[in-house]
Order: sequence, then C-alpha cells, then structure tokens
Amino acid sequence: MTSAAPEPTTPQGLDDVVERAQRVFSYWRNLPREDRAHLLEAVAGGIHQHREELVEIADSETALGTNRLPGEVIRTVSQLRFFAEVIREGSYLEVTIDEADPTSVPPRPDLRRVLVPVGPVVVFAASNFPFAFSTLGGDTASALAAGAPVILKAHPGHPATTEATHRVFRAVADRLGMPSDLLQVVHGVRAGADLVHHPGVRAVGFTGSTEGGAHLARLAALRDDPIPFYGELGSVNPVVVTADSAWTRAQDIGAAWAASVTLCAGQLCTKPGIAFIPEGADGDRVVAAAARVVEDLAPARLLTPAITEHFAAHVEAARSQPGVTALTGTGATVEGRTGGILLEVSASDFGPGLMGECFGPAAIAVRYETTDELLGCIAALPPSLAASLYAEQAEDAAEDTGKLREALTSRVGRLVHNAMPTGVAVTWAMHHGGPWPATNSLHTSVGATAIRRFLRPVVFQDAPRSTLPRELDQDRTSVPFRLNGRLVLPAGYVQPSSQPMGKSST
Amino acid sequence: MTSAAPEPTTPQGLDDVVERAQRVFSYWRNLPREDRAHLLEAVAGGIHQHREELVEIADSETALGTNRLPGEVIRTVSQLRFFAEVIREGSYLEVTIDEADPTSVPPRPDLRRVLVPVGPVVVFAASNFPFAFSTLGGDTASALAAGAPVILKAHPGHPATTEATHRVFRAVADRLGMPSDLLQVVHGVRAGADLVHHPGVRAVGFTGSTEGGAHLARLAALRDDPIPFYGELGSVNPVVVTADSAWTRAQDIGAAWAASVTLCAGQLCTKPGIAFIPEGADGDRVVAAAARVVEDLAPARLLTPAITEHFAAHVEAARSQPGVTALTGTGATVEGRTGGILLEVSASDFGPGLMGECFGPAAIAVRYETTDELLGCIAALPPSLAASLYAEQAEDAAEDTGKLREALTSRVGRLVHNAMPTGVAVTWAMHHGGPWPATNSLHTSVGATAIRRFLRPVVFQDAPRSTLPRELDQDRTSVPFRLNGRLVLPAGYVQPSSQPMGKSST
Repeated sequence: MTSAAPEPTTPQGLDDVVERAQRVFSYWRNLPREDRAHLLEAVAGGIHQHREELVEIADSETALGTNRLPGEVIRTVSQLRFFAEVIREGSYLEVTIDEADPTSVPPRPDLRRVLVPVGPVVVFAASNFPFAFSTLGGDTASALAAGAPVILKAHPGHPATTEATHRVFRAVADRLGMPSDLLQVVHGVRAGADLVHHPGVRAVGFTGSTEGGAHLARLAALRDDPIPFYGELGSVNPVVVTADSAWTRAQDIGAAWAASVTLCAGQLCTKPGIAFIPEGADGDRVVAAAARVVEDLAPARLLTPAITEHFAAHVEAARSQPGVTALTGTGATVEGRTGGILLEVSASDFGPGLMGECFGPAAIAVRYETTDELLGCIAALPPSLAASLYAEQAEDAAEDTGKLREALTSRVGRLVHNAMPTGVAVTWAMHHGGPWPATNSLHTSVGATAIRRFLRPVVFQDAPRSTLPRELDQDRTSVPFRLNGRLVLPAGYVQPSSQPMGKSST
Repeated sequence: MTSAAPEPTTPQGLDDVVERAQRVFSYWRNLPREDRAHLLEAVAGGIHQHREELVEIADSETALGTNRLPGEVIRTVSQLRFFAEVIREGSYLEVTIDEADPTSVPPRPDLRRVLVPVGPVVVFAASNFPFAFSTLGGDTASALAAGAPVILKAHPGHPATTEATHRVFRAVADRLGMPSDLLQVVHGVRAGADLVHHPGVRAVGFTGSTEGGAHLARLAALRDDPIPFYGELGSVNPVVVTADSAWTRAQDIGAAWAASVTLCAGQLCTKPGIAFIPEGADGDRVVAAAARVVEDLAPARLLTPAITEHFAAHVEAARSQPGVTALTGTGATVEGRTGGILLEVSASDFGPGLMGECFGPAAIAVRYETTDELLGCIAALPPSLAASLYAEQAEDAAEDTGKLREALTSRVGRLVHNAMPTGVAVTWAMHHGGPWPATNSLHTSVGATAIRRFLRPVVFQDAPRSTLPRELDQDRTSVPFRLNGRLVLPAGYVQPSSQPMGKSST
C-alpha cells in the first residue's frame, strides 16, 4: 500500500493552491453554521466507513501498529463530530451586544461583536499521529469549523495515508456539492516554509519538533504582516511521586509510569519523560516496578530513520551526564528495532543536560530527598504540556502538597492527579498547551477553544438590523450571547446532561 | 508642573524591577477576585479625586487641551471600574467542567479548565493618551484585573503625568495594605527593549507607531522563549460615502469628517485619514463642507517635535504624488503650531504612496466614479482598526452596499455605520484591533476581552475537590460556567438590564 515519495509542490503550484483557498474562503465563511457542521459530520462518516483500509495503509507507513491506529482513527472521527457540535452550539462566536444608550455622556452607540474566520490556514501534519493530528486531524477540523479553508503540509512519513484520507474528504465534498478545495495538500519542506511566508495565508497550525516549530514561528513573525503561528512543540511532562504514595502504591505507579513512557514507543507528546521519585526503599520499589515493565518490552520500529538517529544521540548524551546510571535497557537499535531504556540520577546531579524532550522509549527517574529539593528541580524544568502528581488523599491539605501543585501548575497547561499524562480526551474542557516550548501561545490544539485560533473579532457599530448576521440580532439569534454585559441563553437552549456516574471521579 | 527628563532605568535597575514584579505575582494571582476588583475601584476613585491636578500636569506636557483631557481622565476612571465589573462577573475565567465518564471508551477523566494570569506584563505607554492608554490605562487595568503585575515603560512625552498618576496608585495601594510593586515604572528606549527580552516578562502591551511596534514584536518573537506581543499600531480608518448619502447629507458628512480628522490635531489612532467620496456635484459639496471646517481651525501644537517633523515629511510626500491637489490648508508649522490640510485625488491616481497612516491633522478625499472602482481601492488599502460606511436606508439591501460592507469588514476590526470611527466606547462589546498593521494579533486593547491577552488556560484533571479553586466547583462557583458542554448561569445571576431607549439606535 505504500507509494513513491510525492513530488514537492512547486512555487507556481503553491500560488495556485493559495489562490484556490482564497476563492473558496468567501463561499465557506458565508455558509450557515449548520452546513459547515454537516460537512464535518459527513467527513467523519466517510473516515469511519473507510477505517479498515486507512489503518492498513497507515500501519504500513508508520509501524504504529494495528493495536493503536484504530483508536486514533476513532479519535479523529470524534474530533470532527465534536467541532460540528461546537459550531452548532454557537458560543464560540462570542456574540456580544451592547445596546445604544443615548443618555450616557458621550452617547453610547449600538455595538455588536462577533468572531469571524481569519482566512486560509496552513496546517503542518505530525509524524506520530497520521490521523488525529494530520490531514483531517484537530487543526484541520477546528479551522474548517471556524470557516477557514485549510492547506495541509503533508508529513513525509505517511504520504499514502495522507492521500487516502484526502481522497475521503474530496469524495464527501463532491457528494455534498461543496468545493473540494476547502482542503488541499502540498508536499515538501520548502513548500511548507514558503506557505508560512505567503501573503494569502492568515494563520499556521503546527505539531512537531521544537526546532522545526521555532524556525517556522520566526518565519511567521518576520513577515511584513506577521501572522499567528500556533505550535505544539516539545514537552517533558514531569511526574511527581510523593513519599506517601510511593509507600502505598509503589508497584502501581512504577508500572503505570513505564507503560506510559513506552506507549507508542515513547513517541507521544505527553510522554512522562521525567519522574521525581523519593530516595529510599519505597522509591526503589517504584523504580523496580518500572524497570520490570521495560525489561519485558519487545523492541519497536520508530517512526522515521531520523527519529531513530536522534533518539540514539539523545540517549548517549544523557548517559554521559554526571551521576546518571541505567536502571534497565540500552535504548539500542538492532535490525531497525529500538529497545527501551530507563535512567536514574539523584536530584543533586539533575542538570540542564537531562531536561530536554527525548522522542522515543527513554525516561529518567530523578531521586529526591526533600520537598525543597524537589521544588528546586521543578522550578528548573522547561515548561510542559502536562504534569502528573501522585499524592495520597491524606496529603491533599498539606502545605507541601499545595506548594507542589502551585509549582507544577505554573509550568504546565494540564495538571493530572494520580494518573499519567498520556491520553488527551476530546472534550470541551481539554487543554493541550503550555508555556514555551510546550506551545508558543496561550491557545490550545485540543478542546473546544482550539477553534478560536482561526477567528478574529469584528464589531458592527450602529448597523441597520436588516444587514446584521442573524446571530447578532437578539430577537432572532439561536446562540448564547451577552447583552449589556450579561450572558443570556437563547430560548430552548438545552441544559447540561449529568454524566452516568454523576459527580467527579476523585 | 513639568519636571526634568527622568534618568533611563539601568540594566541592574531593570532586574530589580522584574524581580519585584515576580515576587508580587504570587500574592496577586492568589488574591480573591473581589480584592483585585476593590483595588481597581479604589484606584479609579483616587484618579477621580486628583483629576484637576492631573489634567493640569498633562496639559502642560502634551498640549492636548483642558477641553479634551478631562474626558480622557473620566474614560480612564471608567476603564478601571469596568474591569472590576468584568472580573466580578467572572465569565472571563472561562470555567469549563467536563465530569468524569467511566462508561466511555477510553474512560473520560474529570476535567476542569480555567484561565490563569501569565505573569509580569510590560505595558508601553502611548504619546497621545497620557491617561487612557498610559500608566493606569486600559492595558494596565486589564493586566491587573487578570492577576498580572505591570511594569510600565513610560512615554517620554509626559513624564510628570506618569509620575503623578503612579503616585496616586501607590497611595491607594498603601492605604489598602497592598504592595505598590503591582505597578512599577521604568524609563528609556533601551530599558523598554531590554524588558521585552527579559526572561521574567511574560507578555507585552503596546500602543504606538507601526515602526516601533514592529521592532518590539520581532524582539518578542526572537526570544529563546517567545512571548505574546499585543500591539496597536498604524491605521488609516477609511470612510466610504455612497452617492445617495452624498446627495442627501453632503454638508453633515463633510463637516463630520473634517471634525473627526482634526480632533486632537489628528493624533488619534481612529482618525479617518482617507474618505472615498463620489465624483460630481454631490461629492463636491461633501468636500467643500469639510474644507470649510479645516479653514476655520486654529493651528495646534503637536505632541512632540518628532511627530511634527514626521507630519511635515508625510504631507510633503503625499503632495508630491501624481494627481494630488490641496483642497485647503498647507499643514505647515509656524511658531510651533501646525495647521490642517485636506488633499484630494481621483481614485484612478490613488496609489500606495497615499495609503499610509499620517499622524496629525491631514486627510485625503479619494473621488470615485463607480462601485467597482471603489471596491478596487478598498482591496488595496492596508487593514485598519475601523472603517465607516455612510449609506442611506434605501440602499441597505442593495447588492453594491452588501459588497462594500463585506469588503470593509474583511479589512477592519470595527465597521461603523453613518458615523465617524473616532470615539471608542468602553463597553463589553467594543473591539479595538484589526488585521496587521492595525494590530498584530486577534486580540483587542479595548473591551472586556482585552483581559484575555494576559491569561492562559490550565486544566485540572481528576483533581480532589478540596484542592480546586472555588470557581471550578460547580456546587460552589459564583461565575457562569460550562458543564458537560453546556453553559450554566449560577444561581442569582443578574439578567441584563434594557437600556433606557430599548432597541438599537439605527
């Protein structure tokens, strides 16, 4: 099922692609939300229908496995349906109406604010998620939902998957009588960089390495007219295990950590690459449990030869740092398959050379003696997408636990309690981002507000009612809105359903 | 009342300032919203109390006049009170709760999203708004409201006003027992640039020139850890007058345009620098009415010698463009006072040399023959903060008017109907921004969402209830929130009040 590497898109080809995107933009942004939602759902259905073929193609290109890939395809289907729900619900438009007040000094005009799409968006596909963060992944779904056409820069690691997914999109668009230019695909490193510079492109979504993302972010910022660049880059996702939880749950925590580290051969952006584990016998049991999982693991093919090389270099550099020992494994690649490795270091030896992200099945246990030492380590870490805190219920109210929560929260976008950071649910509240280098912005690439990245505010002042979009007329709107400073739910707004188990699971 | 130019802040001084800001950040972000609102209101009261002294100082430094400055002081007071209201109402936190669903595959955890402040913020004060966009202006008010300490880079055009305003803040903070380091002031161009580069600074707010803003935006983007830069830069704010409205309202429109152009000697970011007026007798009457207003106007002192020089150069360059004639005035500066000038050009001669922002009392009438010609001119214009459309009610449904609305909306952040763009109301719905170079972001510096610039999302996953901020517990929260995908208004939420005149004023 693999195909030859696609030809890079030429500069002339790029101009054509951008021109076509601009042409469909006017059509797409003016379409009722319901029609946009309908396309997203139909595309979700198309992917679901072709799921077995898609998994087969992707597995042949990425070796991500027929265990994992079906889940990713279903996630992709869910994301498309989720953004259909988000635009139907309509809060994302942020409709805000201030009625005129001729009695105020100076007289206040009638003001109506709404978000509108920015224009054509470029999305860079990820190596490690050929579906959920690629052709029809979250960036594409949220941009299309916003009303922005998408130009996808394909990842060279899975061209046939890209083509097959794109084919599903085009067939669905054709069937609905919608222009297939709403999603176009380009190839080549140069083409990607040129698109970030192209005057017709209005925003960029990116999931990939810190190095590549930082380069493109600068290109976007150095344009004559800078455009927003939304990158999801590197992240170490620290795990903190308190002394009490090491005492009560050593085996469970150690096994869960190693499983999370080696999931998808360690090629997940939420891989917990660093775990802070107490010194002493309880911590030793955590580490031993983790080592047993890694020992039992079969070596795996990594996504690309470049990733395999980077991984080897990273492991070698980490092992050469002062005080670092290997708990188990070598991280070596034999006949194209790479084994896992767990390293260990004392908190006093934990330095900058050990704090970078490592893409692949490696992780390091940092053994600490006191909470102050632990807090010092956390403060030195680069920010991350997520962090995990394992603590006992009896510790929740303790001052030390509070300090740990505050220190971790200040450096991440998601704080997970008593679970590993891998697994990013597709829900309204989810946030997948964090201070640089986790992401380069205050925005998210997962969750309902991902759509906001591709929208900008417009205010209509003293507009004749008849010229207003329906959503901006308080007598006709079907979306939640703010009137004179207060939120109003429209007639018939459906209230939240309680989950089957009612309250939170804590 | 003027004082000597303040000493530039030294590099060591800057480090101290940032360290103090970081120290108060932990205090400020953890303070209940009510206490932050209380400080903002007390500061508003302090400014109101010292308003006469403040106006006198500012007038001696800026020559903005004792006619205009009281209005600006009151605006500043309103802004501080407005952001107190915004944080009390609480929607800005974007509380989003997804309850756990153990029956979903994979099981969905409990997720609670909220916005938290980013950290110390640097605000660059504006030359033309010594109060409303300076020391205690909108950027400072929204950052403090968000929970972020502010470091103000003072504008050299009004150091004594800065000092007096800062003194008010410190006195109020002292009285309330709050740290006065929540707002610190630094001086000097170098200090400003160094702050944008300082590792302890987390975001930048800027109001000023396109050139200066673009430079700082690049500094922010080229950091090892890029930070968001929110600039409000250049804008020409086009006015479009249809043939019908020229026929029915020539005198009113012409006079309003000239008054808006010359307000504050043309030194407003929403000055309508370009007006598209039909060829022929009706258009001639619009232009003649505008010319009469400019003729009767006394020359005025501009804000700084640099602005005076730039204005002279801009006028000279514009006059030398092909087809440009002067309708009235010379724009010359005599004995430190600068006169107004109105230029005219046909749409066919309207080129890039006439499309830039001109800070000062100058504007150009572009005479068009057809709607297509007009649409071509609009498409060539750089984007703006605002645009105005003068059209008759009978034209509202016409296809041409629709095209004009769409063309203008695609290039601005605010479309004003039948009024000039000057005047930016302080309300929930207001947006003060637009595509580059109006601003460099999707954000706003006026209106409720200005606070969002200084916030980032954090999600707590499976957090023990007892450790959650009160706002994130659906049983205790007092703010609007989203539960399982649907908005919920808390018990006792006050519904919107209708304005005295009910419906919109259109």
